[in-house]
Amino acid sequence: MKSMDKIVSLCKRRGFLFQSSEIYGGVQGFWDYGPLGVELKRNLKEAWWQDMIRGHNDLVTPPGAPASFEMVGLDCTIIMHPQVWKCSGHYDLFHDHMVDCRESKKRYRFDQVRGRWCERGDQKIFVSTLAEVEQELDEVRRRAMKFFKLRAKNADELTISDESLTLDKLDDTDSVLAPDAKTLGTLTEPREFNLMFKTTLGALGGEDDTTFLRPETAQGIFVNFKNVLDSSRVKVPFGIGQIGKSFRNEITPRNFTFRSREFEQMEIEFFCPPDQSQAWYRYWRDRRMAWYTELGLSSDSLIMREHEPAELAHYSVGTADIEYAFPFLPPGEYGELEGIAHRGDFDLRSHMEGKLNPNSPEGEPMQVELNEHGKPKYRGSGKDLSYRDEATNEKFIPHVVEPSAGADRGVLAFLCEAYTEDEAPDDKGQMQTRTVMKLHPRLAPIKAAIFPLVKKDGMPEVAQEIYGELKQHMNVFYDDKGAVGRRYRRQDEAGTPFCITVDGESLSDKTVTIRDRDSLEQTRVKIDELSFALIERLG
Amino acid sequence: MKSMDKIVSLCKRRGFLFQSSEIYGGVQGFWDYGPLGVELKRNLKEAWWQDMIRGHNDLVTPPGAPASFEMVGLDCTIIMHPQVWKCSGHYDLFHDHMVDCRESKKRYRFDQVRGRWCERGDQKIFVSTLAEVEQELDEVRRRAMKFFKLRAKNADELTISDESLTLDKLDDTDSVLAPDAKTLGTLTEPREFNLMFKTTLGALGGEDDTTFLRPETAQGIFVNFKNVLDSSRVKVPFGIGQIGKSFRNEITPRNFTFRSREFEQMEIEFFCPPDQSQAWYRYWRDRRMAWYTELGLSSDSLIMREHEPAELAHYSVGTADIEYAFPFLPPGEYGELEGIAHRGDFDLRSHMEGKLNPNSPEGEPMQVELNEHGKPKYRGSGKDLSYRDEATNEKFIPHVVEPSAGADRGVLAFLCEAYTEDEAPDDKGQMQTRTVMKLHPRLAPIKAAIFPLVKKDGMPEVAQEIYGELKQHMNVFYDDKGAVGRRYRRQDEAGTPFCITVDGESLSDKTVTIRDRDSLEQTRVKIDELSFALIERLG
Repeated sequence: MKSMDKIVSLCKRRGFLFQSSEIYGGVQGFWDYGPLGVELKRNLKEAWWQDMIRGHNDLVTPPGAPASFEMVGLDCTIIMHPQVWKCSGHYDLFHDHMVDCRESKKRYRFDQVRGRWCERGDQKIFVSTLAEVEQELDEVRRRAMKFFKLRAKNADELTISDESLTLDKLDDTDSVLAPDAKTLGTLTEPREFNLMFKTTLGALGGEDDTTFLRPETAQGIFVNFKNVLDSSRVKVPFGIGQIGKSFRNEITPRNFTFRSREFEQMEIEFFCPPDQSQAWYRYWRDRRMAWYTELGLSSDSLIMREHEPAELAHYSVGTADIEYAFPFLPPGEYGELEGIAHRGDFDLRSHMEGKLNPNSPEGEPMQVELNEHGKPKYRGSGKDLSYRDEATNEKFIPHVVEPSAGADRGVLAFLCEAYTEDEAPDDKGQMQTRTVMKLHPRLAPIKAAIFPLVKKDGMPEVAQEIYGELKQHMNVFYDDKGAVGRRYRRQDEAGTPFCITVDGESLSDKTVTIRDRDSLEQTRVKIDELSFALIERLG
Repeated sequence: MKSMDKIVSLCKRRGFLFQSSEIYGGVQGFWDYGPLGVELKRNLKEAWWQDMIRGHNDLVTPPGAPASFEMVGLDCTIIMHPQVWKCSGHYDLFHDHMVDCRESKKRYRFDQVRGRWCERGDQKIFVSTLAEVEQELDEVRRRAMKFFKLRAKNADELTISDESLTLDKLDDTDSVLAPDAKTLGTLTEPREFNLMFKTTLGALGGEDDTTFLRPETAQGIFVNFKNVLDSSRVKVPFGIGQIGKSFRNEITPRNFTFRSREFEQMEIEFFCPPDQSQAWYRYWRDRRMAWYTELGLSSDSLIMREHEPAELAHYSVGTADIEYAFPFLPPGEYGELEGIAHRGDFDLRSHMEGKLNPNSPEGEPMQVELNEHGKPKYRGSGKDLSYRDEATNEKFIPHVVEPSAGADRGVLAFLCEAYTEDEAPDDKGQMQTRTVMKLHPRLAPIKAAIFPLVKKDGMPEVAQEIYGELKQHMNVFYDDKGAVGRRYRRQDEAGTPFCITVDGESLSDKTVTIRDRDSLEQTRVKIDELSFALIERLG
């Protein structure tokens, strides 16, 4: 049975993931990758880079795409000019609504403080609980009862209605019992809290030097659009890809690495002529979905959730989320792995606008657009970020399709998918339950493990020679400790697709066995042909 | 002639490096890697990971090493628990001394405000200049004269002595003329400024939630030492390697990417028995030096600078810097690429100490050590970070040898080394000056470029087929634009080691030419054997 507890425990025990700064009690929302985890994550990022950037054929139109295209990479800094975030909209709009409890001094994300209506005599009160807790109705009831008992002597006074509600539909908070409070009406009105981590540049540290850790890698691509155009001779349509860390000061990090405050993204900004953008949106949506299944996520556990037209920004022709049935979610619910958004020319235009008015002595922008709060948008860079098509001489601001994937969420999904319990024979031939991580060979941290059957008769020497040869080509592991069955099981938990055993026969006929992690089949191959046999199996 | 200006210009023009947020005027000390730069940097980091982590043979003792050993990887977060930096000493000791000028309101790094003694009549004043400017004595004189003229009508009053001095040897600052001031004595006493970027965790944002962007990746390894031991069955001696971003709020970022505020490190912490630490220190010092020459840095431009015994911390048996003759430095001067430090058990002990006293109701630490300022050291984690040797049953705190390399400085050194101007024939056979980046094939962003000689007679089809085949194995580039000589030159500037041309003969005898970037030699090989020929040449 696949459970989050078992997966988390295996990740820690085998060195996939540790809590950051664990010896100091940890930091909420930060996770470190251990020896196996770092190899898995590197492999996932390398697969993305190879499949999306280096390996994309810019000569032949791929199936489903409207034209051939080029892809290039980029690697920008985490700290950028603060104006980037003002023009992108993050400074004004990237926030959560928070409520404070005057009694408990705790702060909650407003959209997570949900609860149930309860009746006490003729009074109707709203007993709020954190959304995570609410998932289990019994727990809600238990907590509501407990709170109530603390205030009223008679528990029978309280009846809980089945009506469920979120706080944002309440007119006032006077009749609300906060999650950790004993008296009513202790919650404040919701306030905005920006999710960007703030920091200060340089020693002076004035207000002008305040800047932010990027909440997404995308903006680094937009502000370099012109630099890439000018230096690399790409032509629209083309894409720029980037892998890197981003930071969001989440109020309630949770679900293992799923919602972390520091995380890594793999983002593409694909620039195309406006009249092709719908076709490119469809291409990337389907291409990205296929990528996850190619690497081993089961299509039963994946959904493509197209946003409703009403959910879309006015400039967008579509947005779709690729979502995975993470085991920490209730059955039928999915968590986002990647979003593919058509963003129109919104981002390039935001960084471009605000060309200075030549007639204004103050250098006022030509036009001041208002944002959705009615405040003036920040002035852009004033740089021309449009594109001139050499063939048609037409000038336009490209439209953008943005496939934005979370590397940590990807790793987590592949770990969850890989976790399997089945039966395998032990050293005495008895069937035993085994835990095996069925990771795709491209993602597996260790590609092959090499074992001498016993530590004598020249077997270690042969095994060591094989190890020395194979490690030139792939990440391999040598193990001569314990019974061979136990060594197999250790590699099963690490997700190693192949185990190579040097036994008595190896010495006479120069062969070894290759044991397949998933089928448990053992094949005998010549040592001479081992590299080739493995490379072929690894695909 | 190799000059920094030419290298910087090529880096921008060809898309190796851009200033971060350039369209908004840039941010000092932050640099983005463009399409060629990101591939170069990825290749450097991959070479390090392969050569230092995955490829290290843990079975055979390498030449020069006292024993066989294992290497594993790790990837920790940039934001860690604030206590990490208190116990590591960075919170107290990682700072620069700054002086403020009351007149110009500018702030200077104290160690950079140097100058010359000048005489005006019977008065002796110290005219301070920034250290960079001071490198050119004429400039110092010119500036000193200019400052003087602003105050005194008679320029003859001023004579400059040859005596050079730094401010930190002055008893008072009353007779100092600050770099941008017109009156004497405007500099304040030096004050400490911590170089860590500060930020705040969570929505509450109290003083307890203040934390820092890591100024080095090393501490993430130390705090995970126990986790790695417990999860991966490594035995001392072994090393943990990590590649990742670090941040230092440098007062005066300069020299292109050499001194940046955001930079990437490649660090190893190698844990060994105390009595082996001197031998391991020598091993890593020599191994790391050899790595740079293997990848193409000339040994004429590299030095190993061993620190004097007086420079070493009391616990250290040695520290050496690998330094490179960057073109922005005066002849005979070198800039640090990597430091190899023997750190004793200092770091593990710092994170370990402060076990709580079982007899103290307040849970006071067993012992409070004082730091060099006489303040109590921060309390460690209280966790046991010692190691028990299974064979001898001996328990000890391992000593650490730390080879700490800068990835951006590495990239910069390889770019500077690669930059070459020589002569090559143009399309008419005339010798012309050419600029060529002689990057090692492992580092080159593009491994091979494929050209059809002309865009007709079936040549493009053959070239595209070759391109499609090669891009499965390596990063390749297709170019059919312009004269073939110009295409060669473009690839020379990108550092591409091989250019493959499909010409008339290719169609009849199924061969192509491989042109070598450095020797300019062209060899004809069969298309069937091209992949193999290239892989062999790439080494």
